[in-house]
Amino acid sequence: MRSMSPKEPSNQSFAVTPRAVDYAQWYLDVIKRGDLAEHSAVRGCMVIKPHGYAIWEKMQRELDDRFKTTGHVNAYFPLFIPISFLAKEEKHAAGFAKECAVVTHYRLKSADGEVLVDPESKLEEPLVVRPTSETIIWAQYKNWIQSYRDLPILINQWANVVRWEMRTRLFLRTTEFLWQEGHTAHATEKEALEETYRMLDVYADFAENVLAIPVIKGRKTPGERFAGALETLCIEGMMQDGKALQMGTSHYLGQNFARSNDVMFLNKNGQREYVYATSWGVSTRLIGALIMTHSDDNGLVLPPKLAPLHVVIVPIYKNDAERTRTTEEATKVAAELKAQGLAVKLDDREGIMPGAKYYEWEAKGVPIRIEVGPKDLEKGNLCVVRRFVLPREGQDEHKLRKQFLPRAEALAAINPLLETMQRELLDRARAFRARHSVVINTLADFEQYFAQKDAGFAWVHWAGDHAQEEEMAKRFETTIRCIPFPDQVPPEAQGAGSCILTGRPSPQRVVMARAY
Amino acid sequence: MRSMSPKEPSNQSFAVTPRAVDYAQWYLDVIKRGDLAEHSAVRGCMVIKPHGYAIWEKMQRELDDRFKTTGHVNAYFPLFIPISFLAKEEKHAAGFAKECAVVTHYRLKSADGEVLVDPESKLEEPLVVRPTSETIIWAQYKNWIQSYRDLPILINQWANVVRWEMRTRLFLRTTEFLWQEGHTAHATEKEALEETYRMLDVYADFAENVLAIPVIKGRKTPGERFAGALETLCIEGMMQDGKALQMGTSHYLGQNFARSNDVMFLNKNGQREYVYATSWGVSTRLIGALIMTHSDDNGLVLPPKLAPLHVVIVPIYKNDAERTRTTEEATKVAAELKAQGLAVKLDDREGIMPGAKYYEWEAKGVPIRIEVGPKDLEKGNLCVVRRFVLPREGQDEHKLRKQFLPRAEALAAINPLLETMQRELLDRARAFRARHSVVINTLADFEQYFAQKDAGFAWVHWAGDHAQEEEMAKRFETTIRCIPFPDQVPPEAQGAGSCILTGRPSPQRVVMARAY
Repeated sequence: MRSMSPKEPSNQSFAVTPRAVDYAQWYLDVIKRGDLAEHSAVRGCMVIKPHGYAIWEKMQRELDDRFKTTGHVNAYFPLFIPISFLAKEEKHAAGFAKECAVVTHYRLKSADGEVLVDPESKLEEPLVVRPTSETIIWAQYKNWIQSYRDLPILINQWANVVRWEMRTRLFLRTTEFLWQEGHTAHATEKEALEETYRMLDVYADFAENVLAIPVIKGRKTPGERFAGALETLCIEGMMQDGKALQMGTSHYLGQNFARSNDVMFLNKNGQREYVYATSWGVSTRLIGALIMTHSDDNGLVLPPKLAPLHVVIVPIYKNDAERTRTTEEATKVAAELKAQGLAVKLDDREGIMPGAKYYEWEAKGVPIRIEVGPKDLEKGNLCVVRRFVLPREGQDEHKLRKQFLPRAEALAAINPLLETMQRELLDRARAFRARHSVVINTLADFEQYFAQKDAGFAWVHWAGDHAQEEEMAKRFETTIRCIPFPDQVPPEAQGAGSCILTGRPSPQRVVMARAY
Repeated sequence: MRSMSPKEPSNQSFAVTPRAVDYAQWYLDVIKRGDLAEHSAVRGCMVIKPHGYAIWEKMQRELDDRFKTTGHVNAYFPLFIPISFLAKEEKHAAGFAKECAVVTHYRLKSADGEVLVDPESKLEEPLVVRPTSETIIWAQYKNWIQSYRDLPILINQWANVVRWEMRTRLFLRTTEFLWQEGHTAHATEKEALEETYRMLDVYADFAENVLAIPVIKGRKTPGERFAGALETLCIEGMMQDGKALQMGTSHYLGQNFARSNDVMFLNKNGQREYVYATSWGVSTRLIGALIMTHSDDNGLVLPPKLAPLHVVIVPIYKNDAERTRTTEEATKVAAELKAQGLAVKLDDREGIMPGAKYYEWEAKGVPIRIEVGPKDLEKGNLCVVRRFVLPREGQDEHKLRKQFLPRAEALAAINPLLETMQRELLDRARAFRARHSVVINTLADFEQYFAQKDAGFAWVHWAGDHAQEEEMAKRFETTIRCIPFPDQVPPEAQGAGSCILTGRPSPQRVVMARAY
């Protein structure tokens, strides 16, 4: 994604720039044509438009159900953090206390039709708009925890957070974004570590079974850890340009935040001890991941489980009599599909050609379109069109997408078809990742591989230190995405070896890639 | 509520201050004992604890369903508003541009272990943390609207907002609070007005049928209107101290925000015209309304439709053998009730006396408790205890609350009982309001009525101006809560008359009361 400042397309009815031509522009075009989000008048802050927000709502529901099933409850903590709180945990302060929105005044005044900051309203202590909530939440947990009986605390928060970003990209990196942040408190290290791994599994399950994005689960190297964490676990996905995207993190915080907030509890042996902590989060960035994993040159492609609309029905006609008949049938079909629990839209807008409707709904990622034409009606058929099919050798994809089916058969086919499409997206993304993953043993091969623009994941042995990681980043723009859990390593990448940079022995391979 | 600074109770196991002793302290005690919310380290910002947040989540779901049924979709707009935006709409600026959190810097720096604002990071234009979003949303709508075909826009946003408050009260008035704000755009005044009234009806329906709080629907006087609105509609509830609480507002904004943001559209006649707007909102304040309408001296009382838990089951035993038997039965009962779609908690915590458990769950407002004791088990009975009953003359309320029922009968009774309780809460609140409403015709009677501490709603004729409204507020601490819609006026208050202050003719009575 070398093109630094792709232009925002100016209206809805333009063709999406093909990926092969300009990947960065393609990404923006998909968002624009899909009507998902746009920049606002406030630098770095996006507007999530209704179609984009509907996808986020579906993600929230899926995640929230999983959090509740694993024993968590939601709560809400303040947006503002006193600046002194950020200094409490030393490493956290160093890692986070930089690019923040700072509230310094609490009143405006009007003067000559202008609105100004009232200089007399200066706060004694500035407040930071939360970039993450560990410090404010642990200040509160201090009052909640006296003994092991008060533990564990398993709380999640859905919230907006702000990190002042100089270079922003819709969904992937914005000054304000929406996320969830889990903050749990435990009586033992073992329990806290179990929680850290459990929530990573929840994220991985969500990624694969809802987002249809295969992910690699692993640990971050010390240099890539969350500020204040003893261990940061992550899931990493691969985008269609071969780059990695960190899709979720789960942190084991040890006793760091308990210590800096003096949160102690009486354990079962009657001893006072600092509480053990975890935190974990995913954000609206996942919408970016969704787009960059599945979408194509026609626009957005959505896994059916996240599609705000499953089916759009378009009546086709050349005159009023035909319009009456096909619209009547389309209305019935819509009702019957809704009764199956599907989200269905009947697009009976007048004055818009069917082709324009197809184009619009494809760009919005609706998985299935049903066309109801006069001829189909005569034959008792429905024309069912899938948003995509997996390419099959020697076959015309366009033809494969379209099926004429007897009415009853068509109605019975939709739900199974959606399940198939959900599975196929994951399969396709898995196959893509496999094609763009390599096992590399020498620095020369590494250099050659990353000379390619669309280089993917390199499985390499590594035993360098933090400075050497930075050297690699400088030379190749690559980072260690994670040290994968043993069960995440494909057979061809298993086993010990020697570091591609230092030659020192390495017990297992890591994943190196360029990343968002 | 004259006591200005009630003390925060120090722990969970205290008795709730009776309403008759100190209403303001009672309110805080109910929140504390119900574990709903608490103050944070940030002045004026509250922490909504899991039990309080679970109630908010249930409110959100009920409201969101109603918004979607009436054709609205959700979206998300930036937290920050450039200060110049607030100056655009003159009246809005005058009404709102005062007590706001203002972001002036975007970076911190560390120095000697302290975290400081980096003076070099000063923003060119300060940003205000949204107190409401009309200005930022209409700046965006400008890009979305060209012709009548783009209308209506029916958008709602769930968000946090900040209004810097000097004197705060949990849920009722906090610096940061959670709310929803609807912002719609229409091609005609008629449509926009219909929307304004429709959403007030949605709020009233929600208040009565979910919150079980009867409300009066009406219009605000010009002085009480939302800054920038041509008409503000509201629903007003009565709390147990007789005071009014504004529970929701729906504003007809005319073309004011379209004009200040230059949002024009091409109408069906091919003419360019400013767009018509509405906005409407309710907030976490409704949790305060819920508490102050229904709760009692034992703590929180919840309408079953908003209760995160419908039933708590407590096994009773004196020894291990009894514990095994009653816990086994309690587990079965829990499973059978869950299968009915109920939210059920089995409280089998050891080392806590049953009485303490009853006390705790009553204070949290769980509508029904089932006690499973060895004797009940022998008889095949369950002991079903309601959180409240309506007082019936000559009967012991405590006895009425408790019923021993044969097992099958008990299990079949829960759902109907919850429906009864939901209805009874509304009936009780209606009766309370009727007992605390008076028709008043003279200023002398008015003065006498509001000399009472627990004065309620006074239905009076009014034809004064804004200055005279302020005079009444100064003398009696009363305000015109609303000019009720004609169908909201009880028979005894109907008809024309003369203003209690000026003697001028008045076509209908208004509601005057003290308010939160």
